[in-house]
Amino acid sequence: MKPYFVAALLIATAAPAAAQSLPTPTPAPSGKPTYLPTVPAEVAALRDAALKDDYAWDIAEGLSTEIGPRLAGTEAEARARAWAVTKLRSLGFSNVRVERFAMPVWTRGPEAAEILSPFPQRLVVNALGNSASTPPEGITGEVVGFDSVADLRAAPDAVVRGKIVFVTHAMPRTQDGSGYGFFGGPRRQGPSIASRKGAIAIVIRSIGTDYHRNPHTGSMSFEAGVRPIPAGALSIPDAEQLQRILKRGQPMTMHLTLVSSVHPGESGNVIAEVPGSDPKAPILLVGGHLDSWDQGTGAIDDAAGVAITTAAAKRIMDAGRPLRTIRVVWFGSEEPGLFGGMFYKDVYGTQPHYAVAESDFGADRVWKVNSKLGKEREPEARALQAALAPLGIVPGALDEADGSDVGPLIGAGHPGVELSQDGTRYFDIHHTPDDTLDKIDPQQLRQNVAAWTAILAVLSGGIEPEPKRGKRR
Amino acid sequence: MKPYFVAALLIATAAPAAAQSLPTPTPAPSGKPTYLPTVPAEVAALRDAALKDDYAWDIAEGLSTEIGPRLAGTEAEARARAWAVTKLRSLGFSNVRVERFAMPVWTRGPEAAEILSPFPQRLVVNALGNSASTPPEGITGEVVGFDSVADLRAAPDAVVRGKIVFVTHAMPRTQDGSGYGFFGGPRRQGPSIASRKGAIAIVIRSIGTDYHRNPHTGSMSFEAGVRPIPAGALSIPDAEQLQRILKRGQPMTMHLTLVSSVHPGESGNVIAEVPGSDPKAPILLVGGHLDSWDQGTGAIDDAAGVAITTAAAKRIMDAGRPLRTIRVVWFGSEEPGLFGGMFYKDVYGTQPHYAVAESDFGADRVWKVNSKLGKEREPEARALQAALAPLGIVPGALDEADGSDVGPLIGAGHPGVELSQDGTRYFDIHHTPDDTLDKIDPQQLRQNVAAWTAILAVLSGGIEPEPKRGKRR
Repeated sequence: MKPYFVAALLIATAAPAAAQSLPTPTPAPSGKPTYLPTVPAEVAALRDAALKDDYAWDIAEGLSTEIGPRLAGTEAEARARAWAVTKLRSLGFSNVRVERFAMPVWTRGPEAAEILSPFPQRLVVNALGNSASTPPEGITGEVVGFDSVADLRAAPDAVVRGKIVFVTHAMPRTQDGSGYGFFGGPRRQGPSIASRKGAIAIVIRSIGTDYHRNPHTGSMSFEAGVRPIPAGALSIPDAEQLQRILKRGQPMTMHLTLVSSVHPGESGNVIAEVPGSDPKAPILLVGGHLDSWDQGTGAIDDAAGVAITTAAAKRIMDAGRPLRTIRVVWFGSEEPGLFGGMFYKDVYGTQPHYAVAESDFGADRVWKVNSKLGKEREPEARALQAALAPLGIVPGALDEADGSDVGPLIGAGHPGVELSQDGTRYFDIHHTPDDTLDKIDPQQLRQNVAAWTAILAVLSGGIEPEPKRGKRR
Repeated sequence: MKPYFVAALLIATAAPAAAQSLPTPTPAPSGKPTYLPTVPAEVAALRDAALKDDYAWDIAEGLSTEIGPRLAGTEAEARARAWAVTKLRSLGFSNVRVERFAMPVWTRGPEAAEILSPFPQRLVVNALGNSASTPPEGITGEVVGFDSVADLRAAPDAVVRGKIVFVTHAMPRTQDGSGYGFFGGPRRQGPSIASRKGAIAIVIRSIGTDYHRNPHTGSMSFEAGVRPIPAGALSIPDAEQLQRILKRGQPMTMHLTLVSSVHPGESGNVIAEVPGSDPKAPILLVGGHLDSWDQGTGAIDDAAGVAITTAAAKRIMDAGRPLRTIRVVWFGSEEPGLFGGMFYKDVYGTQPHYAVAESDFGADRVWKVNSKLGKEREPEARALQAALAPLGIVPGALDEADGSDVGPLIGAGHPGVELSQDGTRYFDIHHTPDDTLDKIDPQQLRQNVAAWTAILAVLSGGIEPEPKRGKRR
């Protein structure tokens, strides 16, 4: 919704008419220009038509409004699957189905944090996914603070034993989201390190870049052999408050309640297809994940992703029959541990895929394309770059692609494409109650659909017009 | 913290050296230029030195960190009074005292809202101050929605009776905060209108301009003879979610829990003085309010206000002895109903005041000065305008001034000054859990201190240097 994004988009989208008929010289990082091929007129036309797309908004608005929060393995996620099946059938997709799998389901109970001394006050906290539970009445302990995971790791056990550990570690804002790896350490490694040293619980500064009283949850897991302890995230203003108080040098006592429970449950992937004219050709897989964390409505994470990729597939379907089958997957239970992606790989991992790609980084504009199609398909990768450049998308690596649910497939050698979305404001919202529909900018959402439509138009092997499939419009 | 504010401030503060020795021509709204007098060098020097002030940050940081939330009439507000007395004495103020008064104390209990049908999901809600309480187990009712207070007022009773009323009414963002009057109607008038028509409860779209899951509380009161009902505010994303669901036309059932209680209690004003060399001269009153709502730490509302005005008085005190006594008041219990301001007027309203002024609109920069000193003091009002113009402060009205706690005094005829702060982002944060220290921009806070220092330097009647008061630095 920020004006500068929209301005960038307008600049980016002003170019297509002129750019599609000429080679686009793009300076490579080495300084040597990269010459891209011309873009076929039908690809450019499909792409540019998608800049007026309404399908994606309709899906994102509907899923985040009519279902809202849909935590993995819960009854809400089951309602979301039913909603998805109805929606995908009504859009005209074929072979719409749910593929179920069992999983452990972690759910959140009452949560609270209160400084008892030296300066009594409540703090805003939530539990990290897979946290152990405190007793219902909570626990009380002295707080010991660390500026980083490294400091926690270096601390003598005696300093930590019996205490509530606090780890801060401010994550920087970046366009490519690369801060999430290293600066996510307090969430991913912190709980196990704290437990090994005898801590009774850990609270971290939320892994995020905003300044709102909305903590960022996210999954973590304890290393083998480590006793699970309660693990929570403070909102960033609360983490800084805690830090200011600790800096005053007086002992701090905290009361912490992080109740949660785990039970066996069921999730599932929702799959739909646009059948190709060559049923023997390897399929194109695109998608996102259907589940969300429980405190927001999962608008940018990841109603947007399923909406964008489904809208792009729908636009190809509306144009005719592609050579290759396009399979759209709305993965289940991504958030707590990539259960849907792993299950898909178990079922389909030995079948050939022409390419796999996922949208799961919000709804802001695509700014770079990476791919990993293999050396022999470099011309096709260049054709992708050429088709995307008029949308303001930078040609990126030819030997890299990733995605959470499709990561296991790419890791196993399946070809992959990755469209990098602008992550500048993503970690303001990610995994917080603030993940709501108003965070989606319809203009940037359409640029995403245009980019994915271009990818499907290039990779699907040609679209044969079928003017009489009336049901699909 | 937003860069454009800082840029504006740098432009504004680049001028003083040149501007202080020349008349400043300022176009009046009529197009006729307003010529202001020159600014005495000692006033300009005190003002510009305050652009490097640390006192205000120290107070705002300390109060919002070491006390945090301090709801009117609670034990936390009592701790805040003790903190204030210690701080004001340590700064060297004289006659530091607490003046206590009795009041009814409203406190918040458990709160929750859940749509049961057609699309089950939780919403984020809080109770408005002085709301009636639901039973602990909550209430369930059908929701009827209105786009405005006017629509609610026009509705037949039968449409409302036995239901939970929802009123939306999006407040626009303005620099002067003027939207808060009309667009605050759902909070101020909505509960009484809904109750008269037989509603069992009311929830409104928060009176605010942000898009975060943090509802805006605020006080309301029921008209005489109206049965109090539970009254809550949904965060703005939740209000829009509710509206989207209602627009789909299916009946909506909500479960609403808004537990609260009222008990007799005590609050107080904290008063400190810089004694003037003429004890018979009318005093200058400046201040803000000490209490805050309960979910934020009261950083911008109103630790900033007491910090700014106290820092300005401290800077005058450090420079020497003013002719007129400067009285700094940290009013108690402003939020639930201006109890501190009314009590001050009861005690001191018949004594002459040279001027009264309050800072209670956040910590962003001052952009306009209004005053109401009386026709015969117009040259003094112009001198104030002249002293403030180099800070980028527009000369405003000469017959207007207001302030929440000092409003009753001004209404009773006491002269007043009003510095308008930039409210562009104020209602993003106002009365929400998001009112935390990080929302204060130290640079803009200093511009406020400089403006208030200039006012005190002009109105205090001349400062006699007293180099030996060592305790005060």
